[in-house]
Amino acid sequence: MIPRYTRPEMAAIWSPESRFRIWFEIEAHALDAMAEIGMVPAEAARVVRERGDKAVFDVARIDEIERETRHDVIAFLTHLAEIVGPEARFIHQGLTSSDILDTCFSVQLVRAADLLTADLDRLLAALKTRAYEHKDTVCIGRSHAIHAEPTTFGIKLAYAFAEFARARRRLHAAREEVATAALSGAVGTFANIDPRVEEHVARALGLRPEPISTQVIPRDRHAMYFATLGVIASSVERLATEIRHLQRTEVREVEEFFSKGQKGSSAMPHKRNPVLSENLTGLARLVRATAAPAMENVALWHERDISHSSVERVIGPDATIGLDFALSRLGGLIENLLVYPDAMQRNLDQLGGLVHSQRVLLALTQAGMSREDAYAAVQRNAMQVWEQGGDFLALLKADDAVVAAVTEADLEALFDLGYHLKNTDELFRRVFGTGN
Amino acid sequence: MIPRYTRPEMAAIWSPESRFRIWFEIEAHALDAMAEIGMVPAEAARVVRERGDKAVFDVARIDEIERETRHDVIAFLTHLAEIVGPEARFIHQGLTSSDILDTCFSVQLVRAADLLTADLDRLLAALKTRAYEHKDTVCIGRSHAIHAEPTTFGIKLAYAFAEFARARRRLHAAREEVATAALSGAVGTFANIDPRVEEHVARALGLRPEPISTQVIPRDRHAMYFATLGVIASSVERLATEIRHLQRTEVREVEEFFSKGQKGSSAMPHKRNPVLSENLTGLARLVRATAAPAMENVALWHERDISHSSVERVIGPDATIGLDFALSRLGGLIENLLVYPDAMQRNLDQLGGLVHSQRVLLALTQAGMSREDAYAAVQRNAMQVWEQGGDFLALLKADDAVVAAVTEADLEALFDLGYHLKNTDELFRRVFGTGN
Amino acid sequence: MIPRYTRPEMAAIWSPESRFRIWFEIEAHALDAMAEIGMVPAEAARVVRERGDKAVFDVARIDEIERETRHDVIAFLTHLAEIVGPEARFIHQGLTSSDILDTCFSVQLVRAADLLTADLDRLLAALKTRAYEHKDTVCIGRSHAIHAEPTTFGIKLAYAFAEFARARRRLHAAREEVATAALSGAVGTFANIDPRVEEHVARALGLRPEPISTQVIPRDRHAMYFATLGVIASSVERLATEIRHLQRTEVREVEEFFSKGQKGSSAMPHKRNPVLSENLTGLARLVRATAAPAMENVALWHERDISHSSVERVIGPDATIGLDFALSRLGGLIENLLVYPDAMQRNLDQLGGLVHSQRVLLALTQAGMSREDAYAAVQRNAMQVWEQGGDFLALLKADDAVVAAVTEADLEALFDLGYHLKNTDELFRRVFGTGN
Amino acid sequence: MIPRYTRPEMAAIWSPESRFRIWFEIEAHALDAMAEIGMVPAEAARVVRERGDKAVFDVARIDEIERETRHDVIAFLTHLAEIVGPEARFIHQGLTSSDILDTCFSVQLVRAADLLTADLDRLLAALKTRAYEHKDTVCIGRSHAIHAEPTTFGIKLAYAFAEFARARRRLHAAREEVATAALSGAVGTFANIDPRVEEHVARALGLRPEPISTQVIPRDRHAMYFATLGVIASSVERLATEIRHLQRTEVREVEEFFSKGQKGSSAMPHKRNPVLSENLTGLARLVRATAAPAMENVALWHERDISHSSVERVIGPDATIGLDFALSRLGGLIENLLVYPDAMQRNLDQLGGLVHSQRVLLALTQAGMSREDAYAAVQRNAMQVWEQGGDFLALLKADDAVVAAVTEADLEALFDLGYHLKNTDELFRRVFGTGN
Repeated sequence: MIPRYTRPEMAAIWSPESRFRIWFEIEAHALDAMAEIGMVPAEAARVVRERGDKAVFDVARIDEIERETRHDVIAFLTHLAEIVGPEARFIHQGLTSSDILDTCFSVQLVRAADLLTADLDRLLAALKTRAYEHKDTVCIGRSHAIHAEPTTFGIKLAYAFAEFARARRRLHAAREEVATAALSGAVGTFANIDPRVEEHVARALGLRPEPISTQVIPRDRHAMYFATLGVIASSVERLATEIRHLQRTEVREVEEFFSKGQKGSSAMPHKRNPVLSENLTGLARLVRATAAPAMENVALWHERDISHSSVERVIGPDATIGLDFALSRLGGLIENLLVYPDAMQRNLDQLGGLVHSQRVLLALTQAGMSREDAYAAVQRNAMQVWEQGGDFLALLKADDAVVAAVTEADLEALFDLGYHLKNTDELFRRVFGTGN
Repeated sequence: MIPRYTRPEMAAIWSPESRFRIWFEIEAHALDAMAEIGMVPAEAARVVRERGDKAVFDVARIDEIERETRHDVIAFLTHLAEIVGPEARFIHQGLTSSDILDTCFSVQLVRAADLLTADLDRLLAALKTRAYEHKDTVCIGRSHAIHAEPTTFGIKLAYAFAEFARARRRLHAAREEVATAALSGAVGTFANIDPRVEEHVARALGLRPEPISTQVIPRDRHAMYFATLGVIASSVERLATEIRHLQRTEVREVEEFFSKGQKGSSAMPHKRNPVLSENLTGLARLVRATAAPAMENVALWHERDISHSSVERVIGPDATIGLDFALSRLGGLIENLLVYPDAMQRNLDQLGGLVHSQRVLLALTQAGMSREDAYAAVQRNAMQVWEQGGDFLALLKADDAVVAAVTEADLEALFDLGYHLKNTDELFRRVFGTGN
Repeated sequence: MIPRYTRPEMAAIWSPESRFRIWFEIEAHALDAMAEIGMVPAEAARVVRERGDKAVFDVARIDEIERETRHDVIAFLTHLAEIVGPEARFIHQGLTSSDILDTCFSVQLVRAADLLTADLDRLLAALKTRAYEHKDTVCIGRSHAIHAEPTTFGIKLAYAFAEFARARRRLHAAREEVATAALSGAVGTFANIDPRVEEHVARALGLRPEPISTQVIPRDRHAMYFATLGVIASSVERLATEIRHLQRTEVREVEEFFSKGQKGSSAMPHKRNPVLSENLTGLARLVRATAAPAMENVALWHERDISHSSVERVIGPDATIGLDFALSRLGGLIENLLVYPDAMQRNLDQLGGLVHSQRVLLALTQAGMSREDAYAAVQRNAMQVWEQGGDFLALLKADDAVVAAVTEADLEALFDLGYHLKNTDELFRRVFGTGN
Repeated sequence: MIPRYTRPEMAAIWSPESRFRIWFEIEAHALDAMAEIGMVPAEAARVVRERGDKAVFDVARIDEIERETRHDVIAFLTHLAEIVGPEARFIHQGLTSSDILDTCFSVQLVRAADLLTADLDRLLAALKTRAYEHKDTVCIGRSHAIHAEPTTFGIKLAYAFAEFARARRRLHAAREEVATAALSGAVGTFANIDPRVEEHVARALGLRPEPISTQVIPRDRHAMYFATLGVIASSVERLATEIRHLQRTEVREVEEFFSKGQKGSSAMPHKRNPVLSENLTGLARLVRATAAPAMENVALWHERDISHSSVERVIGPDATIGLDFALSRLGGLIENLLVYPDAMQRNLDQLGGLVHSQRVLLALTQAGMSREDAYAAVQRNAMQVWEQGGDFLALLKADDAVVAAVTEADLEALFDLGYHLKNTDELFRRVFGTGN
């Protein structure tokens, strides 16, 4: 992922330094387990651990060795042997590169999931705070981008909260999917490695042993992980799209915070554009696009091939860094979002009361009108307001068929906003577990 | 989905008849709840239920009405009113089309998931049976499609079992994702509908109430559902690809069952082609391709738009019917798969013992050779066998450096197949919960 | 594709009847060529042609045979033999099923492309007509959905015209990609079939001979075809999205035509929703989603496998029928689109003249102000209008720094709309080849 | 794209230095045109050109300014003003950031296409050389990975040549798609910029003027570009998959070149794995995955939004660098591919002559047997060879029904390989334009 969309915490997980450190941890934990079983001298395990813990792995040196051997794990092991000395001969016995690479990838994906969870927590906190702040800030609800019936801005945010709470649960499940270690040796038969080594290493790294692997950890796990990130990114897109709509000139109910020094359009200085939300829309497309190659990675040939590797070297960092950046940006955006209740009220009033049409329809049928007649009565008055403006209530009062069925006072009562919002507490209770 | 890949059980879920029946159930359950609350006369609810239960909804008639109204739910309600009579005026009060459509879609996706679970159960049973049958059928394990080390055909199937057991868990989670009902009225505020109605209908249909909806059930749920089907389809592709590889002329370790009347190539009558597995590969691509539009569906505008509808009308049936067909075909394929242990042994022997090279390498280092020297010794002999054929063991016995480190007897012991398969029981225990 | 999104013309191309008719044509043309070369008796070719031309192929009968043979081409040939009699033994000699299936698929894709071209022509004609109709209908141009500078509705449509003119050129190229016939026999070596037969059949069907095939026509051709449909669908989405934006309540500059009998929301009868455009948005997602599996189809194994087949049986009809429906719907939508110039003018005036800010900025720098000072002067006045409303011109006249640089009269001239639209003729000339 | 898959030539196109240099060229060419028209002093244009040509743009300084202004083009212009001095005030007049960004992106995509074309030329040359080298190297053709009929390795490569020749034509078309410049100002109306400026800049950069833009160049062009790269990547996957199949242990007809120092498996030193081809398979998935977000980028809102930007900042480099690496690697792989004609012959003989079965079938029907009888006769003998081994010709000679129809001598003639390869010259003529 390019630096522009990269936060250092997530980038650190994918750095060569982190990777080599994790590789070392895996080898050292494996050696500990082998020593415990009696396969290698305890002293060798101790020496390797001690020297490796103190060492700073030299990325440039490892790269140099790799240029010759064309094999990254061998390059690392060669470098490690330079550091550790003769005891290095006990390292990696019975293991394959995949044991190291795949278990390391699990550690990285788990750590990435933890960071993303923290991002989601910040976003959820912001959504909850702003939802309560605007619990009773009335605004128009829109279907098909056409005014429908009143709602509140808090309800909109509560909806987003519920969606990202689901995202958090999905992310947890995705994390569990990939939280396995495999040290099963060539073609996964444990011929040259004791299964207890795998169990020890897994436990030490906070992972579970992979029940059965074929030298590689099965890639359906990773496909599920990236598909889940894709779904979460799609939820980011939904909220970003909502903000973009609400910020458009004709609506202007919210605005992204616009800092002092920031310049908008180079040509049109007055413009305040929802560029962060637009950026999130694009990032969502990018994260989502990693799901397809991750799914294509599942069907490796026989016990394994290496076609997944180039894909994962790219989408591993790209999807997690991109989503981390997006979630973090979205969290800040919600925290600082400028909300304009007056504009919301102004837009709500724009249709001259048409938003109450369904309620009138209901009242007319309840008063005994046939559904068809009631529909016709509402529609003829509604259409006049829609096309020529005016006040829906006034027109209804002047419609003989309507007033024959419902009194003026009852008609007026039908235009009460409170009617629409009486279940706000219930919705908040459902989402946040409390109505206040 | 085209008839060729459609099984009647899954097709039935998506038929117009099923859809209208579910719509009726939702309306009737809602009426029951309204009657209980006292919003409509209990008698009306009873009459609607009674007449609707007996009725056969006339798809052609509904289509005819829809051609005029251009609205499918209104068309259905009009037809329902024809059946029910005057009590029909109590139906659908305070509801929107989305309440009906989305809750119906949930019911259909849940039923589809249940069928897919049954497919997986059959496949899992077949994999388990065949895995135990071939638990000790030795074959070569391959990495990069190159012979690596021995494994058993049972282990291969155990691996597939573990993968589809994960698929089953994922499917269950996906089912839970979409198992919600929403009857929340326009823009989801429950202004015209009591939340208790939603609770009653959800319970009656085996669903949960959607905590907060915006007239529509949030589409991140459906995105997760289809993404999960995509991952499962990718696992189908993996197993199908394995079979295709094993059936190729030069390998011929397994064959798809070939029934008597069946004709292979029109031109080459002797050919037995793995056409079922190839077909599964294609179907996997199709199912997988529904994940992307499902993710694009998430970002509906404001409280809802209808852009998701055309997508779901197509991918709802396509993905579930396609995957049902694929899983069912794969189940039958595994049940009837022809397995050729002799061919497996023949292939295993093909490399003249090279598959034991790692074990020799390990023994040499354990005997005190440096890693580099051991690697060189193994490689020079291995390369000769690889390039000119011959017997690896014989060459090793003739290599001074090797025999200086390891005795002939020890060398011979290194070529024991049992060494590679000693953990088969442990793998089976991990996968099936028992070693026998 | 489901009937709801299927037009009969395109469906006919994919019907079993069409398919069998094309298969017959291929076999009959091949027989003609073989007769000409002297490989089969001319009389046989004549008899087959005569009887086949008259025959109506019995789809149910062919299906019945296929259920036994599990091979569609053999089933057809068996049925054809029933019709033709003993001369049938000359049919299909040296050919493989792929020769028939792939050449038939080419014919179908070419015919589909021709229909889509006709759809595009209708859409282009509508766009051109409406563009000229509204060439000078001023409206606000928006970047980031924020008012930017004036444009005209005709320019918007001209832009769409240019985009669909590109779509037409791309479609033509995609048509040429797949317009090849292959009758090259097993593994494509022409061992059993004379290359002249391929040349004859290709010419007779309006195709080119595939220069080299491997029993199958290479699937990169088809991938390019479906990818192109995906790009065209994305252009459909762009125009549909524009209409959806312009129809939203707060904008209301255009509306989809709303026929008399049509019902909108079942709950809110006044609503006129851009449901056609939303539907197009969804269809675009569906068509686009066929590109990925088409690309995955390219890497068939060795000379061919059949994994592409299930994919193509579905996406062949789906993508072409879906896009045909979408383009046709979009054509009608543009033809009948309701355009509200008054609303456009009202929206244009909404920002109190801020849309002229860039021009003021330019004038100030041209009058000698530094870019930074000019930017600051424009922004302080613009921000006041943006936040509190008011008239931008009046504020500028009251700003000492501004009037020190530019006279009042010059300021007023900067607010002339004609300034923005002076190149409309040039744009139309570029797009339509003439300025009038 | 990560360094591992990046070649310096392609990386250079996407470096900040290149980007700023192109930005400068656009601004300087625009200034030239304005000077020519008389909008700015000729001296100003001269000074800017002179100072800019000499300058090295300071990426760190520009980044620093961007951190404050949060706008990359403004940051660059500020830095440029520091270099140029007071004449800088004439730069960028009437232009928007998009004019610079989009035209720059066109230049980069065109340059990338030129590099990719060179990659394809190298690959095509290698394919042609190796195709002629192995024009008559007989090998078995396989359908469904099952032996079918003989072909030659040269024909396989000729097929790949034809596919990549198509790729080259498609790439050229994609290059033309994006080879446009837009300098049309805010919302694309040329209000503040003379169309002649666009024409001049386009010509100077080797581009065409975009006929109509809306501040941005329409994104259907870019979607087509990336979709085309996706199709080309799929062709890379096809050839890589072929090599992977041919290198598998049981086939071993080809091998990737394996350099001296290179290490294969860390565990199994004898193994020569087709890791380059596997890597290409993964890279193909990555490149292909950029098509979907590129298509989603098309539907920008109104005259433009910036959601495409984050997508393109990533996929622009990723797709072109990834494909450049893949094509270059594939070129080298073909140049150095080890081909084993003996193994090809050995595999060809493996089926005991069954590969001639179709020819026998044809001879029997030509000798007057009914298709059904001939099919049965061939199949019963073929099946025996298939299942129990043995020699197909010998069995046929012992089959009474067969010898009643065809003489022994004629049967023997049917087993002549030359029969299958008689059209090799014709195929080469078709592909390479000459039979020699």
